[in-house]
This record gives sequence, structure tokens and C-alpha cells, in this order.
Amino acid sequence: MNSFGRNFRVELFGESHGPAVGVVIDGCPPGIRLAPEDMEPDLARRRAGATGTTPRREVDRPEFLSGIHEGRTTGAPLCVIFRNGDTKPTDYAAFASMPRPGHADMTARIKFGGFNDPRGSGHFSGRVTVGLVAAGAVAKKIMPGLRFDTEILSAGGSADIPSAIAAAIADADSVGALVEIRVDGMPAGLGEPFFDSVESLVSHALFSVPGVRGVEFGDGFRAASMRGSEHNDPIIDSDGHTSANGSGGVNGGISNGNRLVVRVAVKPASTIARAQATFDFASGLMGTLAAEGRHDACIALRAAVVLEAACAIALADLYRSDPRFASKE
Amino acid sequence: MNSFGRNFRVELFGESHGPAVGVVIDGCPPGIRLAPEDMEPDLARRRAGATGTTPRREVDRPEFLSGIHEGRTTGAPLCVIFRNGDTKPTDYAAFASMPRPGHADMTARIKFGGFNDPRGSGHFSGRVTVGLVAAGAVAKKIMPGLRFDTEILSAGGSADIPSAIAAAIADADSVGALVEIRVDGMPAGLGEPFFDSVESLVSHALFSVPGVRGVEFGDGFRAASMRGSEHNDPIIDSDGHTSANGSGGVNGGISNGNRLVVRVAVKPASTIARAQATFDFASGLMGTLAAEGRHDACIALRAAVVLEAACAIALADLYRSDPRFASKE
Amino acid sequence: MNSFGRNFRVELFGESHGPAVGVVIDGCPPGIRLAPEDMEPDLARRRAGATGTTPRREVDRPEFLSGIHEGRTTGAPLCVIFRNGDTKPTDYAAFASMPRPGHADMTARIKFGGFNDPRGSGHFSGRVTVGLVAAGAVAKKIMPGLRFDTEILSAGGSADIPSAIAAAIADADSVGALVEIRVDGMPAGLGEPFFDSVESLVSHALFSVPGVRGVEFGDGFRAASMRGSEHNDPIIDSDGHTSANGSGGVNGGISNGNRLVVRVAVKPASTIARAQATFDFASGLMGTLAAEGRHDACIALRAAVVLEAACAIALADLYRSDPRFASKE
Amino acid sequence: MNSFGRNFRVELFGESHGPAVGVVIDGCPPGIRLAPEDMEPDLARRRAGATGTTPRREVDRPEFLSGIHEGRTTGAPLCVIFRNGDTKPTDYAAFASMPRPGHADMTARIKFGGFNDPRGSGHFSGRVTVGLVAAGAVAKKIMPGLRFDTEILSAGGSADIPSAIAAAIADADSVGALVEIRVDGMPAGLGEPFFDSVESLVSHALFSVPGVRGVEFGDGFRAASMRGSEHNDPIIDSDGHTSANGSGGVNGGISNGNRLVVRVAVKPASTIARAQATFDFASGLMGTLAAEGRHDACIALRAAVVLEAACAIALADLYRSDPRFASKE
Repeated sequence: MNSFGRNFRVELFGESHGPAVGVVIDGCPPGIRLAPEDMEPDLARRRAGATGTTPRREVDRPEFLSGIHEGRTTGAPLCVIFRNGDTKPTDYAAFASMPRPGHADMTARIKFGGFNDPRGSGHFSGRVTVGLVAAGAVAKKIMPGLRFDTEILSAGGSADIPSAIAAAIADADSVGALVEIRVDGMPAGLGEPFFDSVESLVSHALFSVPGVRGVEFGDGFRAASMRGSEHNDPIIDSDGHTSANGSGGVNGGISNGNRLVVRVAVKPASTIARAQATFDFASGLMGTLAAEGRHDACIALRAAVVLEAACAIALADLYRSDPRFASKE
Repeated sequence: MNSFGRNFRVELFGESHGPAVGVVIDGCPPGIRLAPEDMEPDLARRRAGATGTTPRREVDRPEFLSGIHEGRTTGAPLCVIFRNGDTKPTDYAAFASMPRPGHADMTARIKFGGFNDPRGSGHFSGRVTVGLVAAGAVAKKIMPGLRFDTEILSAGGSADIPSAIAAAIADADSVGALVEIRVDGMPAGLGEPFFDSVESLVSHALFSVPGVRGVEFGDGFRAASMRGSEHNDPIIDSDGHTSANGSGGVNGGISNGNRLVVRVAVKPASTIARAQATFDFASGLMGTLAAEGRHDACIALRAAVVLEAACAIALADLYRSDPRFASKE
Repeated sequence: MNSFGRNFRVELFGESHGPAVGVVIDGCPPGIRLAPEDMEPDLARRRAGATGTTPRREVDRPEFLSGIHEGRTTGAPLCVIFRNGDTKPTDYAAFASMPRPGHADMTARIKFGGFNDPRGSGHFSGRVTVGLVAAGAVAKKIMPGLRFDTEILSAGGSADIPSAIAAAIADADSVGALVEIRVDGMPAGLGEPFFDSVESLVSHALFSVPGVRGVEFGDGFRAASMRGSEHNDPIIDSDGHTSANGSGGVNGGISNGNRLVVRVAVKPASTIARAQATFDFASGLMGTLAAEGRHDACIALRAAVVLEAACAIALADLYRSDPRFASKE
Repeated sequence: MNSFGRNFRVELFGESHGPAVGVVIDGCPPGIRLAPEDMEPDLARRRAGATGTTPRREVDRPEFLSGIHEGRTTGAPLCVIFRNGDTKPTDYAAFASMPRPGHADMTARIKFGGFNDPRGSGHFSGRVTVGLVAAGAVAKKIMPGLRFDTEILSAGGSADIPSAIAAAIADADSVGALVEIRVDGMPAGLGEPFFDSVESLVSHALFSVPGVRGVEFGDGFRAASMRGSEHNDPIIDSDGHTSANGSGGVNGGISNGNRLVVRVAVKPASTIARAQATFDFASGLMGTLAAEGRHDACIALRAAVVLEAACAIALADLYRSDPRFASKE
């Protein structure tokens, strides 16, 4: 299913080359000032334009169909849609017979018995994440004390990200990247033991973003190589603040009031111009595919804000689920 | 909340030093042969005993309260409980005033306003994961084609795990570890785009297990350093099999029929005998804590089967949610 | 929240005088032929026009934003919107200070702290039910063996419904009605014990429709006056068919293969032209309100198909939740 | 599935003749004083004993397995079990070949492919409702301002209930009854538009109780015969109080601060000593069944408190879902 959240609920819909993509956001408290412009900074971060992003240009102007009255949320569900404009469905004709390695072409066909919309990957397209960014902007609005700071730490293993991307483009290839999301202003006490732990909900939302291969908190995978005496964060006051942050701000699934630190491994884009071997359903033999469409060389450039939005909606759901936080709105 | 799953639903309850811990499993199909002994192999893997595990001994005999008739599931919810036997609540008295660094002592207190059961970490105890193992055993039963294989790849950064653990024990310390879960026999088409992706549900369940710091699939964090031409898995037949498995068996959130590969970073146990600085609520000053109770030096030894169980319940929920798989039972 | 269903999930959004109302339908199987015209018969039944219905005219042309490709469902969520056209927001200005007796004006204000959209009752308007009818049309499509037959049995207590409505209009008043929904072709085995019983889900959906005061199955409230020997339905064959249908087709929460019979009490419209006493927030005293807008004298005329749709989505959710039925699609 | 609720979640398990029946209650706030004795008054109301109730005697002593520490809730899930004592499984042997008319024997067999526990109706037994009463007692505890008052208005159509029951017993028959639940102290603003309306959740929970045939609010089915000018409740102050209560305390799905009034039609018990015709699977022909076990002549006597509990858990879920109410705990 395409919805997430118990008390701040997000439902995504739309296809890359259909009339529109969008999102319904349910569980937003009433009285929050919200205008399409509030979404613009995040939408701009997701928009193509920089070197390494697709030449496809979308205006991405959010159209509010519901849930807003006189510039404020009403408490009823928000539906926000983004009309698709710059579509070129013929770009994708080849993938119908030759599924792209690493892409959802093949699994979507199997899952939906061939009835999935194949144009531009249909509902599996990164285009659908624009609705996630819209929901993330709303999520941030209802948690005014939280400050999100997201950074691409490296691409292709290098901290010199522009060079790594330029080199990949020169090779008609793509490149993966490492993204870190930091959230300051976290209250202590967010999250719950076991299945509604901060990490469970945040990772759930992050792994829903196409192209994510790994998620870690605080010391993350490095913790597997550490001793307890190194990894444990000494508590230094009665509020639970710590002098180190190896846990990334969460103990026992519950925020401890320190900075939340999450890192996300984003894979290289699977659609590349370089020739790749794949099965050809037309011939029944192996074939060679060189994608001609408009693609991102480094999806993390645009995905960073999507990941931040995914993190925000997970936190918003926890925020709305604990009356101590929700009632402060 | 303490439940997980839409169509195969698991609800955990219990405290470390209360009368019992247990689980309710709802959504299990009728007619599955199930006896307490079916759980024994997995329970044995979770049981303490090896070097590096706690001296606390629990028989862990599952008591079936419901859902079974004449040795088969009935379609009604299964409730399985495990009586707590070998409890020593006084072990934990110190943590009431001096919360353990890295542990949930502090966050549990904040979350529940001091009403949480502090004895042996109460509901935050790893003891509660015995119910997860029971649920995992049921999950595996309803997916007979799947074969789980879980391995501790390293501890403290070393593949010589016994030595790493022995060294940590010698230092009155604990050590983290890296666990890999491999699932063979995966059908293609399990999972859904976006929020019910295989990775979303599996990571959600894995991060609910205490002590998990990171989760990755296939190439995982290494993908952040790779090129598309390296990371993409060439498709080699009409069933979607691939000649490499950098995606770990999932594309677009949907299983592609190849082996599922998940790695989990497990932190070192936070409770260590070595002295640690922490805030002392009794004095209002920093104090020194050296845990005296019975603890694991390497929680991954016993957590490996818990992680496997968490993975299994996530897959079972997806399995039960797709009528093509569910109807084959 | 504004969503319903576990495996066939419906999310309603929109306000009476906003840009559009609509629905997202998630969990629809792929490959179902579906065109806007398929919804037209049900939309026509909901449309105003007959004596006793509002003079407000809406074209109610469904606009499919997602989930359809080449005339078939894709397995991705369907978003269907209906643009609002014939809006006259000034009609409702009076209700801002004088809440209508029996209407949601007052409770909506309290619930949403005055931020609710008051124009035409906003999200509380019957206008929002057009999305329910759209979802109901999809629900029926995925259960092709079911035949729905809905009848208004009486209005104002009389089987001569046109006369009862005409009399109410002559008195500048409104009138309630009794609606019966009959579903033939029901398979045996739909529904589950306790909380997912057929009656629980169907009543849940029915009571979400504005203006419903009661729901009963089979003999319904008459069963409270009966003996077991009268009310029990004799079983006459090995398929579970019965020679009477006092249970309305459900035993123990599970369909028994006989006709499903549900009756719904629909209240008289609360908005009437006749003068009514109510509290006037402007003066702080009691005042007199005579509604001038465009209203239905008997909401059951248009609500009948909405109730049928609500029943259909509840059954579709159960249908999609049992693999034996879902896999037959 | 056997769970109910989004933020106050109840999961029922157990069979009539298994080791125990019980309930897990998740979402209970921490710090609520709770002892087994707090459940005793409601359990006593459900217990057999009066004329018209089964001779089966169960002590029904709640055993708390989790979620309580030092007499208060901890915020972790409560598991409460009731051991089954006075079981006589041979009473039910006949029903295996001859399903009782009006009972779940036949539908349970179909639903679960014959794997359901048939002893004493297994999970379909009214015995399972003891867990609902336990959950209801907790629900009431977290809404201290609410006062529940439940009355059997009539049995067999007569307000002289003892006589009606005595007459049914004399005829080896059973009799239905009408139950009214009244809740005083309701805050205004509980519930939400559409699918989480007060009526939707309350009816959902009520119809999960075996034997319920109808649910109505306020004027209920009488509203179908009324005019708007009669049925509308005049608002008389700025808090939304009304001078009549035809709506039963709910407008637009949201409580209006007046008394909540719900009536429930409870069918006559289907198990009667009187001979009934039913299909005999052993002979493949129609047969005659005269139940010999221990049964209730009027299930409403014991079900009244179960219905009250169901109403309470639905309200508690709404209460916990609105931060304005939940944060007052």
C-alpha cells in the first residue's frame, strides 16, 4: 500500500507520465499557516537543474485541492497535486522489451501482471517523490522546534562531489552517494519501544524512497566494530544530554534530546547511457541496452531533500502520536 | 505501540522481571501444523550459554494459550507466553538513580514519566524479544519455500569472533557485531512500491530489535561509492534472475526472485562491568557506574536469531498481503 | 482520520466549496477495466434533480489522476477528483454566527478550534460523499459476483414516499427515510470473528455517511423481541443455505452465503427553510434561523447510493483481506 | 483480525475450552492506578448466576501478565488472561455434525476450512468477551469524567424482563433484548468527520460482540419517520448544549457535549434446548437438534456490560487520538 503513518498519514499517488502526481496528508492539526510558497524551498532543492540532474524540467507548482481555508490548515485532509508537464513517453519504449538492470521495470511487471503503467516507470518513478517533499514541508510546519540539516557527504566514495559526478557523466555512467540528515531541537521522549521506535519509523520511511540501500543512526555500522566503553554516550545532566552521540540521538527506540543523526546510502542511478547487458523479451535472448532518455547521474542530488522529507514525516507521525507533543501545537 | 503488521500481526508484551513475556500472533492461516517443539531450535539459538552471553538462565518453554487445536493453527490468534523464572530484580537497583549510558534507562523514564517498570529494563529488556522469536518461527512455517541463513560476519571488527569476544570480556567490556541474514527461495513479486517496500518493512522490524544501529541491503553502504555500471545487476532470464546481486534481491521495493541479503549492525551491549561516567540523580552530580548484574558481552550472539525472526515476520506480512502468495498456503 | 480499510483503502478529501472533492483508492488489483463512464450510473443516482433534492447542480465528472493505464487499473493507487462548480458560498454566511440545529456547524467549530472551512459545511458536507460513490463503483468492479439492490422503503414513516416528501416541502420542512441494501451473490466465509466481522465493517462505513442514525442486519431491532426458535435460520444444505434469513446473511461475523440484508435509518435533513431556534453567537442570545440555501428535503434520495457504496467498500476490504477471494480476481 | 483501535488498541485471543482467554491492551497511558479488583464490578455483571444465564461457572479472576508495576500502568502493553476452568467439551460434540441454526458453527467451519476449534464454539464463543470487559474497565479508567449507565429496556418485546425470560425458559427457548447505553460527562469534540466518527467506531466495536443485530443513536430508527423540525435539537448555549437529544449526542460524527445515547438489539441465544431442524453432515439429510449443554436463555443479561465495554473502548480510542483529551490524563 502507498500510505504511511498512524496519526500523521501520508498517501502518495500518481505516475510519471500520467496527468498528475500528488499526496493526501491526513492528521494535520488545524490552524497551521500554510501556503504553496512554504513548499517552494524544498521543492526547489528537489528540482532538476544542477550538473548531474535530469534535463527534464517540471514547474512543480503545488495545487492545493483541500484542507486549507484562509491560509490555514482546517484539520481536514490536505490534497496537494502537481500536474505533469514535460513528459516524453517515447523515451521509455525500449524498456518494455528490455528491462533496465537495477530498475523496477522487471519487478513491476511481475508484481502487477504487466498492467503497471510503464511510461517513465509509472508509479515507480522518482517523480512520485514530489508528493513526499510536499508532505515533508507540512510535517516540518507542525514541529516548529525541529531544524533539519541535510548534507551529501560523498559521491562515488569521494568528498569532492562535483568531480565525482563529472567523472561519471564523462563515462556515460552514474554514481552513488552518502547523505546525512541531522535534526536539532529534538525533544526527549519521542518514539516508543519496539515497533514504533524512532529508528523503525524513520528507516521505514527512508527505505520507501527509491534507490536507498542502507540506513544507519549515530555510529551506525561502525558500532559493529566498537566496544561498549567507546560506543556508550556518557549522560551528563538530568535532562539526558550526553557528551558524545554514538547512538545518534535515540536510546531504546526513544529520542534522548540530543541531535538525531541518520545516514543514508543512495545507490547510483540505474538508468545510464552506457551499454548494459540485459534480457530482451522481444528476442528471448540477452541484448544490449543504452538508455537514451533524460536521467540523473547522481540521484542523491535531488533525493537529499526527499530523504529529509521522509525523515520529517516519520517524526511527525511520532509527534502526533504522543499527546505531550501533539497538544503543544 | 507494540504491534507490527497489516495481515500478519505481531503484538509483543511483557517485562523482564514480570510474570511472563509473550506475543499475540494474528493473521496466521488455519491448518498449519505447529507445536512448541517447532520453536525450540530458534529459541535455543537465542538462549544464553555460550561465552559472551549472560549467565541468566531461562527455560523459555513456550506456553500456547490459544489458536491451536489438535496440533494445528485454527485461524484464530495465537497467544504464546514464556514465564519468567530466573529473576534477580535487585541487580538493577543502582540504575534507578544512575541511568546506564547507551541504555534506555533514561529515555524510558522520560517517556513514561517514571512509571515504567525499571526492573531489568522492564519492557525495554532484550528478554521481550523471545516473543519475536516465537512469532518468527510461525512466520517461517507459513512460508515453507523460504530458507533463512543468518551469520555473524564479525565482532569488534574482526572475523575471529571468539577472540574478539574473549578480549572484550577480559577488559570487562562488550563488543558490537555485524550480522548477515540471507533468504533463499524468495519468490519474485513480494513487496510493494513506496511504503510497503520489502526494505521498508524489513528495516522497520529489524530496527525494533534493541541494539540495532544500521541496516543495509545487497551492496548496502558500499553502493554509495559505486558507479551504476558496477552496481546494476544484469538480468539474465525471463524470470528476472540476475548474474550479480548488488540490490540484495529487491528492485523498486519488490523482490526480484534472487537471494535476499540484509546486513545489520548490532551495537556493543551498553551494560558493562567496566566503570562508566553517568549522571547520578541521587547526588545531582556526575557519578561512576560499574554494572554488576548478568549481561551479554556480545548481544549479537543471541540477537542473530531475533533479527532473523524480525526479518521473517516482515516477509510474512508481505506474503499474507499479496493474494497470489497467501492463497498458496 | 479520513481513511477506511486495511487492504482496500479509501481516503476521502475535499470541501463543499473548495476547488475539488475526491478520493484515493489504494489496494485495487491490477488489470480491472475501469473508465469514468463506469461510475456514471452510480453518480447519476447521487445527483440532484428529483423533487426533494437540492437545486445545486454539479456535473460530477470524475477526473482520474492516477492508477489507470490503457483503460485498466495498474495496481497503483487511483486518485479520482470532482471539480466543484456551482458554488454559492454566501448562502452559508448566517451559519457562522448561528449554528444549525442538528448539523455539524457547532461540533466542527469546537473540534477544529474555528479553523474548519465553514463554506457549505466544508469537509462535513454531503458533497464529500461523491468520492465514496466513486470508490464504491471500483469496489463493485472487483467483486463481479455481487449484485447490489438498494431501496428506500419509506419516508416519514410512509411507504408512499413521494407524498411524504411533497408534504414536507409544503411545510418548508425535511423528512427522514428508511433504506434497505440487499446484496446477492455473497460468498460464504467473508468476514472474521470479532473486530473484522461483516457487521462491524459495514456499520463502520455506513455510519461514516452523514445523517445515519441506525443500522440493522436481517431481523435487526425486531430480533430484540423474538424467541430463538423464531429468529434462528434453519440450515438446509451442506453449503449453509438457510430457509429463512433473520440473520441477514451473517453468523458469527462471517457471511453464510445467503443474501446480505442491511437497513439504514437516515435522518431528515437538518437544514430547513422553516424557522428554528438556535444560539446566536453574534448576540449571545437565542435567535431564529431560517435557512435560505439550496438543500435536500429528503437526503435519503441521494444518500441511498452513497450507503450502497459504503457497504460495497466494506465488503471489498474483507474480500481483499481473505486470500481465497482476493486471488480469484 | 482480532484487534481494534488506532491509539488505544485491544487484541482479543483465546477459545472457550482452551487454556485461557485474554486480551492485550496497548496504548494505555502510564501512571493509571489499576488492580485486578478494579475489573471485578464489571466482571461480576458479566458472570453467570441470574435466572436466564448459563449454569457454567467461571471464576474470571484476571491475571495481569504485563504492563503493571507497583499498582500502576507503566505505558507498556497490558496482557490480562483468564484461565478457563469449568469446561465440559463433550457438551458440544453433536454440533460437529449438526451445525446450530443461527450460530457460527457452519460459518466458522467454512471460513477456517474445518480447522477452527469447535469445542464450545472455540474463538467464536461469548467466553472471549471477558477480555473485552477487562479492556473496557481500563478504558473507563483513562476517561474518569465519563459515567456509563447501561440498561436492558426490554426482553422479548416486554419491559417485564424477568417474566419474558421465565416464559422463554419454560418453553425451552431463548429471548432477545434491547439494551441502552448512556454516557454522561461526554466532552464536546470527540470523534472526527467520516471514517472515525463516534458512531462509526462505537458501532464497529458493538457489532463485534456476538449476537448484536442492530445499533442506533438518539432517535435512531425513529428518525426515519420524523421531520427535521422534530428531530433537530435546538442549541441553547455557546457550549453547544441542546434542549433535546434526538442526535444521541453526536453531530457530524463529533460529540456535542450532550449525553451519548446508543441502543443495541441483542438477538435471542441461538443455542436452545427446543428441537430445531438443521442439516446433518453425518447423514447428508436434514436432522433434528436439541442442545443439551449449558446456555443462556437471554444473552443480553450478561452481554449488557460487554456492550458497555465495547462502547468504552471505542470512546477511549477516540480520546487517545485527540491530543486535547489525551494530554489531560
